[in-house]
Amino acid sequence: MPRGFRSAAVSCGIKNPDVDRLDLGLIFSKFPTVSAGAFTQNAVRAACVEYSVRNLAKAEPRAIVVNSGNANACTGPSGMRDVRLTAREVAKNLGILQREVLVCSTGIIGMEMPMDRILPNMPDLAEKLKRADEDVTRAIMTSDTKPKSVAAKFKVGGKEIRIGAIAKGAGMINPNMATMLCFVTTDAHVSKSEIQSATREAVEDSFNRITIDGDTSTNDSVIVMANHRAENRMITKGGAGSGLFRQALSEVMLRLARKMVSDGERVTKLVTVCVRGARSKSDAEKVARTVAHSSLVKCSWNGNDPNWGRVIHAIGYSGARVREETVDIYFDGLLAAQNGMTAKKTPLKELVKAVSGPEFTVGIDLHLGKGEYSLYTADLSPEYVEFNREEYAAAKQKGLKSG
Amino acid sequence: MPRGFRSAAVSCGIKNPDVDRLDLGLIFSKFPTVSAGAFTQNAVRAACVEYSVRNLAKAEPRAIVVNSGNANACTGPSGMRDVRLTAREVAKNLGILQREVLVCSTGIIGMEMPMDRILPNMPDLAEKLKRADEDVTRAIMTSDTKPKSVAAKFKVGGKEIRIGAIAKGAGMINPNMATMLCFVTTDAHVSKSEIQSATREAVEDSFNRITIDGDTSTNDSVIVMANHRAENRMITKGGAGSGLFRQALSEVMLRLARKMVSDGERVTKLVTVCVRGARSKSDAEKVARTVAHSSLVKCSWNGNDPNWGRVIHAIGYSGARVREETVDIYFDGLLAAQNGMTAKKTPLKELVKAVSGPEFTVGIDLHLGKGEYSLYTADLSPEYVEFNREEYAAAKQKGLKSG
Repeated sequence: MPRGFRSAAVSCGIKNPDVDRLDLGLIFSKFPTVSAGAFTQNAVRAACVEYSVRNLAKAEPRAIVVNSGNANACTGPSGMRDVRLTAREVAKNLGILQREVLVCSTGIIGMEMPMDRILPNMPDLAEKLKRADEDVTRAIMTSDTKPKSVAAKFKVGGKEIRIGAIAKGAGMINPNMATMLCFVTTDAHVSKSEIQSATREAVEDSFNRITIDGDTSTNDSVIVMANHRAENRMITKGGAGSGLFRQALSEVMLRLARKMVSDGERVTKLVTVCVRGARSKSDAEKVARTVAHSSLVKCSWNGNDPNWGRVIHAIGYSGARVREETVDIYFDGLLAAQNGMTAKKTPLKELVKAVSGPEFTVGIDLHLGKGEYSLYTADLSPEYVEFNREEYAAAKQKGLKSG
Repeated sequence: MPRGFRSAAVSCGIKNPDVDRLDLGLIFSKFPTVSAGAFTQNAVRAACVEYSVRNLAKAEPRAIVVNSGNANACTGPSGMRDVRLTAREVAKNLGILQREVLVCSTGIIGMEMPMDRILPNMPDLAEKLKRADEDVTRAIMTSDTKPKSVAAKFKVGGKEIRIGAIAKGAGMINPNMATMLCFVTTDAHVSKSEIQSATREAVEDSFNRITIDGDTSTNDSVIVMANHRAENRMITKGGAGSGLFRQALSEVMLRLARKMVSDGERVTKLVTVCVRGARSKSDAEKVARTVAHSSLVKCSWNGNDPNWGRVIHAIGYSGARVREETVDIYFDGLLAAQNGMTAKKTPLKELVKAVSGPEFTVGIDLHLGKGEYSLYTADLSPEYVEFNREEYAAAKQKGLKSG
């Protein structure tokens, strides 16, 4: 972890009081920060998102408190009251200002936060922070099967700068953004405008380029905090170290984004959709997103079926300018369709092999221009559907109240 | 069947030569017709669609020849040659002009039409027509589990007018349009402009309002043929009988559209999404389509889970103007969410019951204006994914050649 940061987690039984599972975490900077954030574009935003966006506009955060098991979305005025209560309690226990606390949540929509389970655990959480006890990475997991964290370091003017980042993903993963949380800490000394611009850029090339099921959540939040403990000369926009900083930040986020897709709900494959030769970047993006969202295409990936016909049918209804007779489609570099027809020279067996691994690329060349776009997605499995059939009624039975 | 029409079907083994299954059908009018059509909006269109669109522009059809098992899409120049060969053979056997023949196909994309299996069966098909032998409704089925046909009649000036219609649907069902074929025959005497306008209107309120998996096919075709054998006074736009004709045509298509959704691939529920109170009709449509396409929403329907939280999250990312605090959501008339929060007065048990039947309505009121839109959709089942995992490699093994 970068210098001057600490984290901790406790188990509150937020989703289910009978299960002992980390579900409340805290990340804390012992020093002032400059920070930036990116939040869901969904018009329905959780109370904690509204709160954190506002706080980030008026103060630099020192702490992030985050829970899993309940999204605190669609909970009306009582939802906002609960966010404020949580932030106040954290501030009190850490001896910082309430506006220096950001609040994040992930979990079911439409249920009241069980404050009677959360508040009594705050002193313990603050206490654990001193010993950097327990793993906050685990506390933010919902349907993730693996904790997701990455680290990077680089040098600017002889000073080592560290970046640490954790994330959760799993379902509802779609850009702008996903049900995803990502917290990045760095000890870099960096200007406000540089951290804001670098964050925007890194999010655009990572979390905005992944899609699992096309659903966009109410709670997505990326927060980047920098506390200058590396004692480097301040990195400013276009100044010394800016290139390295941006590269490291982008790489960290991209690695987490890819982990999210690989660990998507009941996903068996990480698929990169690479479009080139489109009239424009926007056309290329339309094609990539339409292919990545097509249920029929995703089902065929799940079945190791090199079904380029479904890919081209999705290209056809993407809304992009397309000429059927100039479309080439590749599976992991193997030509499957050429000029809109089957590429007879590639043996079926090789194509099947190409789409049977845990990771492959679908290459699409429209041969109409220079527009390019790529994104990361996954297959659709019967198990995904099984997994997502029941939630609301089950959550109610576990003692959550509707918000 | 309306007077003056006949149909027949034969088995050619198009998809699999070892299986005896009706897969080539013919619909024929003994008399000249006035006709109209509506075709897929996918930029990648099957050869037969290109051909039929062109023919319909220059002549009034007397016959429709249709096959299942192969879409003849993405088959290049040889695909178009096969369509022409098929039309010529039909014309020869029926003693009509080639341009009076429309050709439709449904099935896998990217495979050559097995003309060696189709052409030898043409004389037999024409022969069967005389005896109105076998059911063309069955010949157009692909993954449909039930044949779909409806009929209607009404009187204009004392003359009885009959309408008969058949359709196939199942997968790739999405407006503008679906992998769906629909053939309507009527003995009405009707003007060209009236049949064109009535067809547009009926398609808009039926097939363009259904969605199963959000995929739009390369082959969708609706064809309406009228042969004036009812001997009524000609129905013209706005003239006597026009209202009744349009009503009957719309009703026939809507009944078929609903049958298509109910019989969608491995679907367990027919769900009507009704949006009102939007700023505009276009906003209402955005909301309805986004809710109907959300994988997570569809999974919850499959699990009998009255998960209004997932519905509101989809509303939120629909792109329509939305204020969370004015959104009401109903399941079959029962209030599930009010003002963007849970409607506490409705017992969970009743909500679960409402979404557990084979058919229910999701009502959404945005309380922002007068825009309304509704459409028909279905749940997403694990079995849908299972069913759609394998196709391409399997088809190749059944002896179809890539186009």
